[in-house]
Amino acid sequence: MQTIQSDNYPIFFENSIDELIAFIERGKYSRFFVLTDEHTSVHCLPKLTDKLNTLGNYDLIEINAGEESKNIDFCIGVWKMLIDFEADRKSLLVNLGGGVITDMGGFTASTYKRGIDFVHMPTTLLSQVDASVGGKTGIDVDGIKNIIGTFTQPKAVFIDTAFLDTLPPRQILSGLAEMLKHGLILDAAYWNELKQSDLTKPSTALVHRSVVLKNKVVMEDPTEKNIRKSLNFGHTIGHAIETWALNDKPDSLTHGEAIAIGMICESYLAHKKTGLKAEELEEITATFNRLYPRFGFSRDIYEELYSIMLKDKKNMDGKVNCTLLSAIGKFNIDNICTKEELFEAFDYYLAG
Amino acid sequence: MQTIQSDNYPIFFENSIDELIAFIERGKYSRFFVLTDEHTSVHCLPKLTDKLNTLGNYDLIEINAGEESKNIDFCIGVWKMLIDFEADRKSLLVNLGGGVITDMGGFTASTYKRGIDFVHMPTTLLSQVDASVGGKTGIDVDGIKNIIGTFTQPKAVFIDTAFLDTLPPRQILSGLAEMLKHGLILDAAYWNELKQSDLTKPSTALVHRSVVLKNKVVMEDPTEKNIRKSLNFGHTIGHAIETWALNDKPDSLTHGEAIAIGMICESYLAHKKTGLKAEELEEITATFNRLYPRFGFSRDIYEELYSIMLKDKKNMDGKVNCTLLSAIGKFNIDNICTKEELFEAFDYYLAG
Ligand SMILES: NC(=O)c1ccc[n+]([C@@H]2O[C@H](COP(=O)([O-])OP(=O)(O)OC[C@H]3O[C@@H](n4cnc5c(N)ncnc54)[C@H](O)[C@@H]3O)[C@@H](O)[C@H]2O)c1
Ligand SMILES: NC(=O)c1ccc[n+]([C@@H]2O[C@H](COP(=O)([O-])OP(=O)(O)OC[C@H]3O[C@@H](n4cnc5c(N)ncnc54)[C@H](O)[C@@H]3O)[C@@H](O)[C@H]2O)c1
Ligand SMILES: [Zn+2]
Ligand SMILES: [Zn+2]
Repeated sequence: MQTIQSDNYPIFFENSIDELIAFIERGKYSRFFVLTDEHTSVHCLPKLTDKLNTLGNYDLIEINAGEESKNIDFCIGVWKMLIDFEADRKSLLVNLGGGVITDMGGFTASTYKRGIDFVHMPTTLLSQVDASVGGKTGIDVDGIKNIIGTFTQPKAVFIDTAFLDTLPPRQILSGLAEMLKHGLILDAAYWNELKQSDLTKPSTALVHRSVVLKNKVVMEDPTEKNIRKSLNFGHTIGHAIETWALNDKPDSLTHGEAIAIGMICESYLAHKKTGLKAEELEEITATFNRLYPRFGFSRDIYEELYSIMLKDKKNMDGKVNCTLLSAIGKFNIDNICTKEELFEAFDYYLAG
Repeated sequence: MQTIQSDNYPIFFENSIDELIAFIERGKYSRFFVLTDEHTSVHCLPKLTDKLNTLGNYDLIEINAGEESKNIDFCIGVWKMLIDFEADRKSLLVNLGGGVITDMGGFTASTYKRGIDFVHMPTTLLSQVDASVGGKTGIDVDGIKNIIGTFTQPKAVFIDTAFLDTLPPRQILSGLAEMLKHGLILDAAYWNELKQSDLTKPSTALVHRSVVLKNKVVMEDPTEKNIRKSLNFGHTIGHAIETWALNDKPDSLTHGEAIAIGMICESYLAHKKTGLKAEELEEITATFNRLYPRFGFSRDIYEELYSIMLKDKKNMDGKVNCTLLSAIGKFNIDNICTKEELFEAFDYYLAG
């Protein structure tokens, strides 16, 4: 599988562990740090340890697993460890984990001493096809996802789908939602291929194809002025549901499960507003309902979801902005949706 | 006084309040926020209020005065206020204050929703000639100055030396140290002119000249790979003394007072190592001793100062790196100084 060239950095798909080791050696870093969570230090780190040890001069930083770690307190904890370890400007941070580790490791590194180098070795499907590509770093504050962060590119990304072997099925499904999204917004053929594939463990070829799609979009529009907004499909509503679930009952929804719901709701809006055909809406709804568990919420939370949406960074001037589809494989950005439309879309999901 | 063009942003010196108002109007911001501290909201804000009120749609955020506010807790406080005010990506932050406000306001804005626009209206001499120019933002963690931050340029800087009328004399002296530094590293004629001027209230022309000098350096080397390091003259030792004083007895030293000490010490090192003449060392020492109060510290803290220096971002690989002078008006970067040399330099200051 070919290395993908992103905005001044490579995304490796073959011999990724060796590529990482070679990268660190070439970089002449004064030292490096490996950031893991309690799961990736058990399931992923051992696959690297022997080779890392040949390099010497590194330290491990481990945080708790899960979205609850992606906040300023853990971030301060990592900063303080870097201070204690006397990490200088020529240090490197290696983020070994899912999107929580790559997002918050990226933010921590991009602000430590006004920015040290970092690389990602993403170990969840979601982080491989999405979080590790595109230069968005971030943490949550007050339960608002990614409200604080920077746009900073990693120096390289090392993808090894063998890490997915230990990933729980629910986490596979979480990443899969983004892959399906890439098909829906950009590539109908890819969407069709995905629907027919064995999705319990997506092949490296499918992962590669998603990264090519996402990378193309972020390269054209790094700071999300226009076409990058295509990636927000499913996310205006999905993020709100995810945020609500995070506050109400942590771990009840993964990111992908939330945006699968978001994509059903926003496909409904697309059908209403931007010309998505009824058959396409049905096909999308049926596919997500086949793959993803149903999530129950009641009408009582509609207002709360709406007020969460208003706080979302994608939305301005007190208006809710959605990326919709005009057909499978074709997106349509900057659609203002009214409260009534959004509530109708929730109804559509709940009725399904 | 001519507007200075920096890295994609203007630095105004005339009609600065009107220029700010015009800038906000042109920018079509969804809303804006003015960040002040308890002193600038009394001494500076009233000079703007009438004009700001013609614009509408803004809120004030006030923090405590002083370096103790330049930390992550206050930063979180500002983020949360922006969240509560539902600041979106098209919001603007106006930093009205000294270097504490411009540094931490810049950091807060550069990370809120991955970056919103900000402008500086610096109200101390130090922030006018130094902190507001060059795109460094930052906060202190664990008493280590500016350890966390970003390189992000403001959209504009509005300098009005009339704000200096209410500034305590000690704060004037603090900024003056940076102006004297600009002369020492880059412009012997400017140094001589400064020595002969009335320094109780530096003229707009002198302030302008300092900004031209600093701006030239940061434009050539925005991320401090080489010539920007010239600005570190006096700061390797000065920062250590400032950090020590901050931990030990807050408010006992201003930034400028600390780096004035640093410049005496580092001029001594320059005489020892990089060819600064004995007469020049004497001239520098006498000038600072005439203008600045002596600061007493004992040999007992030398080791502590040294270990603070090792944690400084300017230093790598466990070595202390100083920018020195080869003559008045000529700098020399990347001089490794040993512990013994540094201790000798402290001795030189204390003996003076
Ligand atoms: N930056 C971006 O552009 C972007 C894009 C999408 C999502 N995200 C962010 O990514 C985060 C979600 O990412 P995620 O789903 O990877 O979450 P995660 O990092 O929390 O990983 C999910 C779980 O899998 C565990 N895990 C990771 N790798 C494993 C492995 N190989 N074997 C066994 N267990 C493993 C983790 O410990 C965790 O418990 C969210 O915070 C989201 O906001 C960011
Ligand atoms: N970013 C950079 O490149 C850079 C460069 C130099 C210094 N700095 C930072 O700047 C900070 C020091 O700046 P500072 O000396 O301006 O500190 P400051 O912001 O704390 O201001 C000093 C004092 O003056 C008060 N004040 C401000 N304007 C006033 C006015 N017009 N009238 C009366 N009182 C007023 C403030 O409330 C404060 O009490 C340090 O944190 C330093 O690290 C940054
Ligand atoms: Zn997503
Ligand atoms: Zn300084």
